[in-house]
Amino acid sequence: MNYLKLFESIVNKRSFLCVGLDSEIEKIPSSLQKEKDPIYEFNKRIIDATHSSAVAYKPNVAFYECYGAKGWKSLESTVNYIKSNYPDIFVIADAKRGDIGNTSKMYAKAFLENMPFDAITVAPYMGEDSVSPFLTFKEKWVVLLALTSNKGADNFQYHTDNGIKLFEKVLSVSKNWGDINNMMYVVGATRAEMLKEIRKIVPDHFLLVPGVGAQGGSLEDVSRYGMNSKCGLLVNSSRGIIFADSSATFDKVAGEKAEEMQQEMEKYLSEKNLI
Amino acid sequence: MNYLKLFESIVNKRSFLCVGLDSEIEKIPSSLQKEKDPIYEFNKRIIDATHSSAVAYKPNVAFYECYGAKGWKSLESTVNYIKSNYPDIFVIADAKRGDIGNTSKMYAKAFLENMPFDAITVAPYMGEDSVSPFLTFKEKWVVLLALTSNKGADNFQYHTDNGIKLFEKVLSVSKNWGDINNMMYVVGATRAEMLKEIRKIVPDHFLLVPGVGAQGGSLEDVSRYGMNSKCGLLVNSSRGIIFADSSATFDKVAGEKAEEMQQEMEKYLSEKNLI
Repeated sequence: MNYLKLFESIVNKRSFLCVGLDSEIEKIPSSLQKEKDPIYEFNKRIIDATHSSAVAYKPNVAFYECYGAKGWKSLESTVNYIKSNYPDIFVIADAKRGDIGNTSKMYAKAFLENMPFDAITVAPYMGEDSVSPFLTFKEKWVVLLALTSNKGADNFQYHTDNGIKLFEKVLSVSKNWGDINNMMYVVGATRAEMLKEIRKIVPDHFLLVPGVGAQGGSLEDVSRYGMNSKCGLLVNSSRGIIFADSSATFDKVAGEKAEEMQQEMEKYLSEKNLI
Repeated sequence: MNYLKLFESIVNKRSFLCVGLDSEIEKIPSSLQKEKDPIYEFNKRIIDATHSSAVAYKPNVAFYECYGAKGWKSLESTVNYIKSNYPDIFVIADAKRGDIGNTSKMYAKAFLENMPFDAITVAPYMGEDSVSPFLTFKEKWVVLLALTSNKGADNFQYHTDNGIKLFEKVLSVSKNWGDINNMMYVVGATRAEMLKEIRKIVPDHFLLVPGVGAQGGSLEDVSRYGMNSKCGLLVNSSRGIIFADSSATFDKVAGEKAEEMQQEMEKYLSEKNLI
């Protein structure tokens, strides 16, 4: 999927919602625990209930990996399910990988070739040769960590060389490794005040914004400071949607929560004359 | 395993060799390709042939993950094999994970609880709350990226704030998150000249040093500048040992290559009066 197709999908759905599939088995409703693969069954129900409000899904790989080979199967089944049933939805492997070149190539193969993910989150610490192997796959994306939503972001991401903070350097250096069709950046919603500065460095790139809801970020602020002429935002919500309810009809409630976010997003897209 | 036990193992084996299990299936001898799990069969033969010269093994997780659930099983079988047969050997999951707190907790569970790894490599970009969940497991270690051996290390790791380079800040800040019994650092052998400076910041910590051999680093330089009074070094070699030969007796050659490195290491340990 390229930049314009992603924008087209946002316009069609009047939404820039990404649903985070942080499908922790302990939080999955008891009605599903007897299934052979409870995580996959849970995800299917969540996906079917939310797909009309969402342009993207983001499985958090740790929540699958922690169950070993079995969890890995749940992850494969989930991304295959989305791509078979809703092929226009953008699917991001939230894996935060990154290693020397020949190793990154293997991670890229795992997620972008052997599984049909559209994108993978990557950590920038090891620099260009750790990121570029992910950029060799056609119509696939790197989502590079820039300014994250957690408290620990303060430890190193603001390290300042000649007035340039580390996350700003990550943006300005890495934007030349790919282009707006294959790179986007993670910018936490809890740092919405920084979006104005970030937009000066990457005016056109898409930003993946976690941290709205449970982590305290505001959708309104993110939209005000981060939206560009092609929207340029994917805002993620995980727990606030997928674990909004734990009864047997959890999917109905998830669908409603996703629709609530879609409605608010529609308002901001409309204010910006994008729909 | 704690710091002193690791040193004891180094003294006993007269070696600080870590063998990297970057077991790429295309490079595995054809004689093994008919096996049900060729990667695991290859690893077993390599481990049996090298264990007397090695104090540590380091499976590179990407080379397993790229085969999905099947690869994950090979990884589980490999670490279980090492821990069942050679329980005193230190096993590092080279996974370079790191995410917000509740996600890092899941990665920690995957490698340090559900599999019997002693340690996992972690990326520092997201700061303390992304690292600390790995430090809550008794006698388990974080191996944090500091100065890596690849070219891309130059992109961000030397970003300098008030005279302090990013990798120096990573060392000085993170050393307070744990202690010498549960944290070590990745410092590439290709940056051996920096080891003197690094030892001023972390005089006592163990360093995991990749990049000797194929990547061009020198074991002599690493030992000269990096060794402390408890050795404080694990030097990794992967391709130079495990893929030294591709015939049916590849394991014999791997054993000889490992022994060659052990012999050179014995010399440096002896010069430093540690054995």
